[in-house]
Amino acid sequence: MKNGKYSISDVAEMLGVSKSTVSRAINGNSGVGDELRKKVLDLVDEIGYKPNTIAQSLSRGRVNIVALILGDIRNPFYADLAFNIQRILNSHGYMVMVFNSEYDVQREIEFLKLTIQFNFAGLILITAQTEIVEDMLHSMDVPMVLVNRILPSYTGDSVLTDNFQAGYMAVMHLLELGHKHIGFVRGPGVSSASSQRFEGYRQALRNFSLPFNEEYVYESDLKMETGITLARNFVKDLKVRPSAMVVVNDMTAIGFIDGCRENGLSIPEDLSIVSFDDIEFSAMKGIELTTISQHVDKMSEHAARLMLKQLEEKDAKPERVILEPTLVIRKTTGPCKE
Amino acid sequence: MKNGKYSISDVAEMLGVSKSTVSRAINGNSGVGDELRKKVLDLVDEIGYKPNTIAQSLSRGRVNIVALILGDIRNPFYADLAFNIQRILNSHGYMVMVFNSEYDVQREIEFLKLTIQFNFAGLILITAQTEIVEDMLHSMDVPMVLVNRILPSYTGDSVLTDNFQAGYMAVMHLLELGHKHIGFVRGPGVSSASSQRFEGYRQALRNFSLPFNEEYVYESDLKMETGITLARNFVKDLKVRPSAMVVVNDMTAIGFIDGCRENGLSIPEDLSIVSFDDIEFSAMKGIELTTISQHVDKMSEHAARLMLKQLEEKDAKPERVILEPTLVIRKTTGPCKE
Repeated sequence: MKNGKYSISDVAEMLGVSKSTVSRAINGNSGVGDELRKKVLDLVDEIGYKPNTIAQSLSRGRVNIVALILGDIRNPFYADLAFNIQRILNSHGYMVMVFNSEYDVQREIEFLKLTIQFNFAGLILITAQTEIVEDMLHSMDVPMVLVNRILPSYTGDSVLTDNFQAGYMAVMHLLELGHKHIGFVRGPGVSSASSQRFEGYRQALRNFSLPFNEEYVYESDLKMETGITLARNFVKDLKVRPSAMVVVNDMTAIGFIDGCRENGLSIPEDLSIVSFDDIEFSAMKGIELTTISQHVDKMSEHAARLMLKQLEEKDAKPERVILEPTLVIRKTTGPCKE
Repeated sequence: MKNGKYSISDVAEMLGVSKSTVSRAINGNSGVGDELRKKVLDLVDEIGYKPNTIAQSLSRGRVNIVALILGDIRNPFYADLAFNIQRILNSHGYMVMVFNSEYDVQREIEFLKLTIQFNFAGLILITAQTEIVEDMLHSMDVPMVLVNRILPSYTGDSVLTDNFQAGYMAVMHLLELGHKHIGFVRGPGVSSASSQRFEGYRQALRNFSLPFNEEYVYESDLKMETGITLARNFVKDLKVRPSAMVVVNDMTAIGFIDGCRENGLSIPEDLSIVSFDDIEFSAMKGIELTTISQHVDKMSEHAARLMLKQLEEKDAKPERVILEPTLVIRKTTGPCKE
């Protein structure tokens, strides 16, 4: 026993065939009969042989690395997506390289160029934005999946939450608690997820003839520290405050709540807050966010599945997967006292 | 005005010199007189020309990408390190690719092989572990910095916290609050940071003749979810509980506190908890961890500085930077009531 560490040579020797036959059988390439292929795959399965992905990619003349571009590595929602997607792709023999763009278009473009230059096997964009990137994606011939955010004319594979519905859902929850004056902390304009949540919020206000007040709309770059700053302004600047706020993501909301408490507001007694993402932290005692889950596990699974589909079938039809969001009620929303 | 987007051709045209002269001047290569070099650099500075790093790396025949390997992208301490290091290296024209090893040695090795294969400019390891990796690092001829964790025979550049002192410091703080029965949640054995914190804790117990109880020692993989599970066991299994726990990192501590509260313990009334890292979350209301800061900003700055030093000077002498930890007292530690 080699303690589970078999090489391709071991497999070849055990079956009395060549290494290239084993490799071809494993990779689904032609030149191997069905019977022999089954024999190889059964043995590989039985002994737990793990192909050496580097050696594989070299012998294929292709780099089996998937580039994954995200806007902020410090945002747990993105980190979770990246982590889960990587885990699944790893188990299929692909490695993942993570690029942190800081939402900077120039950097995104550099990363896209690298993807071409290095002949990476695929590309996953978690925070796609702007027309420049869109144009570039159109010109790229590489398996590609957009996750979380979409670009207007992009028609390839993508996985999204129904963000309009998520925004609508947040307002409905507050409405049921009796809130009528509801503000919104939105994300940057280039985020389709943020814009659609905002539209859902607007639509719900319209549908129920609730007032829309421009003064109650703030903008965040999705970071916790920004949430703290916004809350300070929120508490100090407004003469009349809304009784509830919808906040574009959990990270901003956690900061916002902190800033509100620091300035004497009780949550949810003085202000109800509902946000989006349902990151792991949001369930912690002392935080306990009411938030709208984007089902990061499902999102990651679909993203990885769509990537693998493109990697394995040449002419796979593109899919757009739109996931239903789910409201998770915890302790940052409560009945309106007005 | 081209809105700040000048190309190397523009710079060359403005000065009436060739593109390769501009490039040589910027990159500090020979074949350009001092006067002309100054002229180029002054103009570049004035118009805010940003070299296209990809084109640059291609013309240099080298890829100006620094690979950064970390164990868990979802751990905010590592994400902060990666983020800050990247920001500094970016501003010097280097890109950073992040690899998430899941603390898996096989994966770490694959990433190291990629670093060689792609001829990356440098390598930063945030969670280096095991002898196999150590052997491989010895054989690699690439600028290299170890951050946060160290390997026994590694003598190259590194940035570390004095983790022994950090562990000692945690116990001293608890001792001052009157605690005598102090447990420890340690990290995986392969983490030098964890082992040294544990040694500091042991030493402090010895120095003040406090009892060491093997039953009070737990092991975490540094993840929040593990903290929750450990706390459940902690509350249920122990007949007599210590009055304080030192926890190897903030993520585990946040989970541990959550698990304790879920099982009816009040923090710090029933149990004081001090941890390590001082991640952004630890300051949030409702969390407010007493923790030992590793000064992630300074750590990142040194890591980036050491990398740049190696990239720019061929025979730079290796440095080992050891940072002093700092105790940050918040609300998870309190006086012992026994």
